[in-house]
Amino acid sequence: MSVAASALHGQVSQARPRSTTAAANAAPARVALLGTGTVGGAVIARLSSWRGTALGERLSLVHVANSRRAAVGLDGLAPEQAVAILADSSQASALSDIASALEGDGARVVIDATASEAVAEQHAQWLAQGIHVVTACKIGQGTSLARWRAIREACAQGASGYGDSATVGAGLPLLRSLRELQAGGDRIHAIAGVLSGSLAWLFNHYDGMRPFSALVRQARDAGYTEPDPRDDLSGEDVRRKLLILARAAGVALDAGDVEVSSLVPPELAILSRDGVDAALPALDAPLRERYAEAYKNGEKLRFIARLERHDDGRVSARVGLESLPGDHPLAGGAGTDNKVAIWSDRYKVQPLVIQGPGAGAEVTAAGLLDDVLRLVG
Amino acid sequence: MSVAASALHGQVSQARPRSTTAAANAAPARVALLGTGTVGGAVIARLSSWRGTALGERLSLVHVANSRRAAVGLDGLAPEQAVAILADSSQASALSDIASALEGDGARVVIDATASEAVAEQHAQWLAQGIHVVTACKIGQGTSLARWRAIREACAQGASGYGDSATVGAGLPLLRSLRELQAGGDRIHAIAGVLSGSLAWLFNHYDGMRPFSALVRQARDAGYTEPDPRDDLSGEDVRRKLLILARAAGVALDAGDVEVSSLVPPELAILSRDGVDAALPALDAPLRERYAEAYKNGEKLRFIARLERHDDGRVSARVGLESLPGDHPLAGGAGTDNKVAIWSDRYKVQPLVIQGPGAGAEVTAAGLLDDVLRLVG
Ligand SMILES: NC(=O)c1ccc[n+]([C@@H]2O[C@H](COP(=O)([O-])OP(=O)(O)OC[C@H]3O[C@@H](n4cnc5c(N)ncnc54)[C@H](OP(=O)(O)O)[C@@H]3O)[C@@H](O)[C@H]2O)c1
Ligand SMILES: NC(=O)c1ccc[n+]([C@@H]2O[C@H](COP(=O)([O-])OP(=O)(O)OC[C@H]3O[C@@H](n4cnc5c(N)ncnc54)[C@H](OP(=O)(O)O)[C@@H]3O)[C@@H](O)[C@H]2O)c1
Repeated sequence: MSVAASALHGQVSQARPRSTTAAANAAPARVALLGTGTVGGAVIARLSSWRGTALGERLSLVHVANSRRAAVGLDGLAPEQAVAILADSSQASALSDIASALEGDGARVVIDATASEAVAEQHAQWLAQGIHVVTACKIGQGTSLARWRAIREACAQGASGYGDSATVGAGLPLLRSLRELQAGGDRIHAIAGVLSGSLAWLFNHYDGMRPFSALVRQARDAGYTEPDPRDDLSGEDVRRKLLILARAAGVALDAGDVEVSSLVPPELAILSRDGVDAALPALDAPLRERYAEAYKNGEKLRFIARLERHDDGRVSARVGLESLPGDHPLAGGAGTDNKVAIWSDRYKVQPLVIQGPGAGAEVTAAGLLDDVLRLVG
Repeated sequence: MSVAASALHGQVSQARPRSTTAAANAAPARVALLGTGTVGGAVIARLSSWRGTALGERLSLVHVANSRRAAVGLDGLAPEQAVAILADSSQASALSDIASALEGDGARVVIDATASEAVAEQHAQWLAQGIHVVTACKIGQGTSLARWRAIREACAQGASGYGDSATVGAGLPLLRSLRELQAGGDRIHAIAGVLSGSLAWLFNHYDGMRPFSALVRQARDAGYTEPDPRDDLSGEDVRRKLLILARAAGVALDAGDVEVSSLVPPELAILSRDGVDAALPALDAPLRERYAEAYKNGEKLRFIARLERHDDGRVSARVGLESLPGDHPLAGGAGTDNKVAIWSDRYKVQPLVIQGPGAGAEVTAAGLLDDVLRLVG
């Protein structure tokens, strides 16, 4: 049956709607954006699309920087002009300038759309100063245990929050669901999933015919892989994501606790970044062989991350290529879809499964801005 | 690699942890539970399992009732004794007694684990009195538009919240995800899914050989269907769920706007409840035929609910049996799994898909208590 939309009053029903009075009175949140690459550019585009809307009025972009330059506008930069203003700016980029640029009325937020360790090193300090941090970068929570702990301890002080939805699943409700299950009293038993948009795409498309290296180049050019595709193929990016999920699931793993089976052969691993592209065909023969073996058994190759808490109290964590039956819950999906299964006290047999696009500038930027809006209230 | 769990500090990482000071100071929330059947019984069991834990200390069960009797304990009833106390109680059940039983320090919550229209009629009034309402019953939001509006308007006053996670997907993060996408600026384009745990179970198990009616009896005895299985087979239960989802997606549909193709043949529909069981075999021949047709095409029968917002501004909503290709995203799943795909501004091509157990006392009770904890803060 069809209904004229004019007769339908578009209503967003929320369990606890933001009080409109509070919204009208509160100063907009002050936002600093670090990184104007693929993801940062999409953040600016989404902010631009919100100009003149109620969402747009809740945020004021006061600082934009890449690794070279910064632009500051204490009364807010028009997002659609931010890129041009930054290009013309003569101010050097300096992380030490950010806190002062954020000073003023309203909540303060740093959006980290870089892949910079120097920026990740600041997360805990900003949090301790009462500045919310929202990040697409996995280095803060997905590498050293000490850095993760520092972030968590700074959050526990309660003055600020850490938005990490974009670090795993590009904003899919993965970390949120893990936390909500635990907030409701469940213990997480296991997690298994396809956590890399680029590796999902590669194995959803690889048919054993076209060389794997050609697909890798295509994925890189489409922006699905990190700039150096070895960062994806090595499984190191998935290791970080599994560490973030495991830690959010109450298992404070160290990076070395995850057993990673890299797809990168040693001769490719030792090359400098310049030599990588030409040497990519070193991937082809071993993968053709694994594909043929899987095909023979009616199975599909998928790059899987697994965390398991065993009954005897031990924990295992591993990342690597698996050959799965065609009707396995993790064998489906398309494009860059991520797919994650979660088992817990209430989901003992049939898991909760969440699936969807797990890479791409637009969903990542949307995930970042979801977190910003949630934190600034 | 295996890691001794003793070396892992179990930590629940939350973006914004509840302040421990606030938790220590706040009086426990006062909870009234209505319904002590399948779901209500599981709520009591989960509360019992929380005795002596931090979660248990946040809630105090002060009122328990079924349709006949009520038990009140102003200082809190021990959940593990509640059933026995209720059985011995001489107090008649009366909805008008609830508000006064909840009076005292701490947040106030009614948990509705009934299928009672009389209880649903009270939801808006409780909300207006500042009492949170958490419900497994779909009548409040899934039937008349006027009742839904009254609930939403009472919530908009801001003094109380409505927990509805258990009404669709038995606590799966479906309504939450719809609301979060919209809170982040997305418009919902379409929703399609298997929304009935019982119909999912029936069509995941039906193989064209064993009579469909025999499966229906088995599902009813396992507690997957409503007490009268026609409530499931008619699609009326799914209509309610689609109405709840559509309304949460900003499309304020009337019940009559959903086109429902019932599985119940007219000769079964007209019977009084007593006659239903004997007449169930009337289902068998038509379904055997539809199954044979699907099988011939390599397809699977699934009972699907769909909401679509078309580009020309019109909306369509329908519920009924569909024959889907075996590799269709909604054809998979097992047991009573619900499976819902959501398309929105950011998920234009590949949808967000959420899958998991969508019926059963334990997950439903857990979903209710998740909402309670979220609302009482
Ligand atoms: N692309 C995706 O689909 C996706 C999905 C989820 C998460 N992520 C994560 O998002 C982050 C950004 O990815 P991307 O694809 O946008 O990378 P990108 O295109 O390489 O952009 C990185 C940006 O960070 C800037 N930058 C580096 N150091 C900085 C500093 N100290 N201060 C300020 N800016 C600095 C760079 O500046 P210059 O322009 O001066 O070099 C560049 O603008 C990464 O951590 C990535 O893992 C990406
Ligand atoms: N079962 C599931 O898997 C599931 C999943 C999601 C949602 N739900 C929904 O959850 C609700 C409860 O389902 P159920 O399976 O637990 O049903 P049930 O076993 O039939 O239990 C219903 C309970 O409600 C009580 N009741 C009826 N009217 C009442 C009133 N005015 N005041 C207080 N109590 C009253 C009944 O009392 P008596 O004992 O005196 O009859 C009974 O204890 C339904 O709305 C259902 O649609 C169920």
